[in-house]
Amino acid sequence: MIERIAILGTGLLGTSVGLALRAAGFSGQITGWNRSPESAQTALAAGAIDSIAADPLQAARESQVVLLAVPIYATLDFMEKLSGLLGSEHLVTDVGSTKKQITAAAGRLFNTPERAAFLPGHPMAGKERGGAALGDANLFRGAVWLFTGDPAWQRSPRSAELVKGWRELVAAMGSKTLDLDPVRHDELVAWVSHLPQFVATALSALLEEEVGDAPELKDVGGRALREMTRLGASPYSMWRDIALTNTEPVQAALQAIEQRLAHLRENLRTPELRDEFEQANKFRRE
Amino acid sequence: MIERIAILGTGLLGTSVGLALRAAGFSGQITGWNRSPESAQTALAAGAIDSIAADPLQAARESQVVLLAVPIYATLDFMEKLSGLLGSEHLVTDVGSTKKQITAAAGRLFNTPERAAFLPGHPMAGKERGGAALGDANLFRGAVWLFTGDPAWQRSPRSAELVKGWRELVAAMGSKTLDLDPVRHDELVAWVSHLPQFVATALSALLEEEVGDAPELKDVGGRALREMTRLGASPYSMWRDIALTNTEPVQAALQAIEQRLAHLRENLRTPELRDEFEQANKFRRE
Repeated sequence: MIERIAILGTGLLGTSVGLALRAAGFSGQITGWNRSPESAQTALAAGAIDSIAADPLQAARESQVVLLAVPIYATLDFMEKLSGLLGSEHLVTDVGSTKKQITAAAGRLFNTPERAAFLPGHPMAGKERGGAALGDANLFRGAVWLFTGDPAWQRSPRSAELVKGWRELVAAMGSKTLDLDPVRHDELVAWVSHLPQFVATALSALLEEEVGDAPELKDVGGRALREMTRLGASPYSMWRDIALTNTEPVQAALQAIEQRLAHLRENLRTPELRDEFEQANKFRRE
Repeated sequence: MIERIAILGTGLLGTSVGLALRAAGFSGQITGWNRSPESAQTALAAGAIDSIAADPLQAARESQVVLLAVPIYATLDFMEKLSGLLGSEHLVTDVGSTKKQITAAAGRLFNTPERAAFLPGHPMAGKERGGAALGDANLFRGAVWLFTGDPAWQRSPRSAELVKGWRELVAAMGSKTLDLDPVRHDELVAWVSHLPQFVATALSALLEEEVGDAPELKDVGGRALREMTRLGASPYSMWRDIALTNTEPVQAALQAIEQRLAHLRENLRTPELRDEFEQANKFRRE
């Protein structure tokens, strides 16, 4: 039923969605747009999109499903622009990493019987480096794809059908869907996604100061060090909007890990250390 | 030239050394001992050792190279016992994760012309779970194997030859050797090995409290979360002796990461965040 998709933003996620849709057997049209034309060319050459759109708003109008795969503030900008241009024959969805602001904007700008439907989405998949060239048809395989839309707004049967169709495509790309309240979403990802990233960034930055000038000493850390700092390669450009739109939950998570580390430091020679290791073991029990 | 090796402790590291020696073509005898006989049986069944020794001290006396592959305090105990039993026809070496105390004991108990040589060693390889059953012939491939012995003590030609022979076997197992001062060693591993472990333990313990009761929420974190908490499975039994014998350097590293995380938390909405990400990116530049 979904036959025309526009992917606005052909970075790592947008390109991977195009490739994953094709790998899942989606046979409709996929048009793509990117602020940088080279990235759209890369996505086209990889087979993630069939055509490059010159005008993203025009491409959105001509599609049934519009996937916004740009940073969070750029997503909010597109939502403002698309709101008046699209009607109930369209579904807009996104891949933004924080959902409180986007879901609030969706309620304000979309999701009335006359307007387009907006389904806020967040695939829990990525790489520590971005770009169309790293696009991967298997990126979403085994991942969780979160949605934070309120099912109550699906007033028109057409919207409900488009939402159902998009959820089926997400499942076909290999992801498990999970619906969450947007505030709960942002708190949860602060713990399980943003905290690990900021810990890896702090650890990498600290180690760059301590041993960065001696590459042979980096090797000493082996696989454990490589894993614990892999996310240190993540670019600021991807995380700036996350830090700005999920500040309080991330601050709370950071404060909690600081306290936990201080507790560990104060108990290196006491039986409390055993309790901390056993608590950590529980998280990794199989 | 080395034809008889005794591996005292057939846990993950001891068993892996036996398997790696065989994979590298070592054709001499390997006898093994373990406090728990089941573990020695597992190592024997895997082909890591040729025979199980009933008495570790007797096994040491009958070998040219004695590898101590037990926790740090057990290593120090064996050093006390072996010192008077062995002579200059023996080399004792170990795999302990901290080297200041072991290297000091080596100077006090070994390394005179009449006594056995002791070469303090530390292969930077492991797994987050221990045990003979996980023994792996490729564990040391591509790893760094640190030594903290003072070459000056190799007074007897026999000691020097045994040391040379053991270094060649380490290289044959696929490791790159690196010689460090023991105090510098302990400071370095506090940064590149112990800090990542304690950060992973603290992160895992914290997340167990926050989302441990909802397994579907753990999945949300995906690969990044799995990697950042893999070491959370490491057992206290392995890390207790490290915390006790390297307390001050680990405390300094933990305090530094706490400060770095606080700095990040205070700057989520300032341009300082960019500097932290760029500093972290440098550590992972390719």
